[in-house]
Amino acid sequence: MHNFSVSLDGFGTGEGQQLETPFGHAGSRLMEWAFGTRTFREMGLHGQGEASRGVDEAFASAWAPGIGVEIMGRNKFGPQRGPWEDEDWKGWWGDDPPFHTPVVVLTHHPRPVLEMAGGTTFHFVDADPAAALEQARALAGGLDVRIGGGVSTVRQFLEADLIDHLHIVLVPIVLGRGERLWDGLEGLEERFTIEATPSPRGVIHLVFARRTSR
Amino acid sequence: MHNFSVSLDGFGTGEGQQLETPFGHAGSRLMEWAFGTRTFREMGLHGQGEASRGVDEAFASAWAPGIGVEIMGRNKFGPQRGPWEDEDWKGWWGDDPPFHTPVVVLTHHPRPVLEMAGGTTFHFVDADPAAALEQARALAGGLDVRIGGGVSTVRQFLEADLIDHLHIVLVPIVLGRGERLWDGLEGLEERFTIEATPSPRGVIHLVFARRTSR
Repeated sequence: MHNFSVSLDGFGTGEGQQLETPFGHAGSRLMEWAFGTRTFREMGLHGQGEASRGVDEAFASAWAPGIGVEIMGRNKFGPQRGPWEDEDWKGWWGDDPPFHTPVVVLTHHPRPVLEMAGGTTFHFVDADPAAALEQARALAGGLDVRIGGGVSTVRQFLEADLIDHLHIVLVPIVLGRGERLWDGLEGLEERFTIEATPSPRGVIHLVFARRTSR
Repeated sequence: MHNFSVSLDGFGTGEGQQLETPFGHAGSRLMEWAFGTRTFREMGLHGQGEASRGVDEAFASAWAPGIGVEIMGRNKFGPQRGPWEDEDWKGWWGDDPPFHTPVVVLTHHPRPVLEMAGGTTFHFVDADPAAALEQARALAGGLDVRIGGGVSTVRQFLEADLIDHLHIVLVPIVLGRGERLWDGLEGLEERFTIEATPSPRGVIHLVFARRTSR
């Protein structure tokens, strides 16, 4: 898991996701640290000024190398809930999504595989985390599986102890409402070693590495 | 406010405060970073090994200089709730508490001033934050007022915008339950500039400085 932002009060997204506001009332505040990085600029997210090559970029750029597939929750794929009213929705990212690998979308409402430009294919899968991971591995060509979010997906994979590497970006804001990442994860720190690195832009990169001695 | 520890999920104390467990099920985990510092050793909290003179001590030692009075909530003073059954309880700290100044204890159940050894006097006051601050200032001899905790006291003073300097120690643990610091403080970051410094011992010092330009 890479580049997952969380507020001081533990929210990974705000309240009220809609088409125009993927992060609800949080707006862009959780991801602003990333907009200045070279990696996110190249994904078509336009910040202002010179692109950063500093610590934020060092972390941001680690999201793609060695990754053969992403698993994401349906709320990261789109704002719809329940059965698909139509299948025109192809994600937030336009015709050429930035993934360039297979992407497993977890949903209770499967639909046909969606092939996009640039190598991204969306596979809609109704499965629990362990079974989804197995399906993702079969698509990964021997490379690693990235958990892409959103909040409840990350939380479920952490609960099932299926995450080895967790990069959290702590953003020093108090969101007040939204979806909490840490709920149900009491004692999580016992399973990981944790390293903290502050960025000059004001966020803190937390790297959780799963202990191997168990 | 100095040396106030908060978990990743925003709890400033655990669940179930009792006589033997001032921080409830959190045990000593929120304060372990401090036990190795010279400042806390000199308060009689005994860690093991050489006392730290590093960044943890640099922050820890700032709690006393220039402070003329502390304001604390009743739950920091003791585990009792409701009317005092007797007045034998004189705080968690023994006959010579580490404060060495007047201490205003917020309670709906006032009792007589308690004079301890070493210059600490406990004043029991039933007042809202602004009025308590006024009473504390009158006892401070022109020095600064420290907010000592616990969680709800800090939260109330932040809500009332009565804190200029807030030193939070983010401890990378997921407590799961207890008392949340950040509730009701949505948008707090707009009132402060925030600086983050990680410690080699694994915690992150956050310094909130109140913006003066408003």
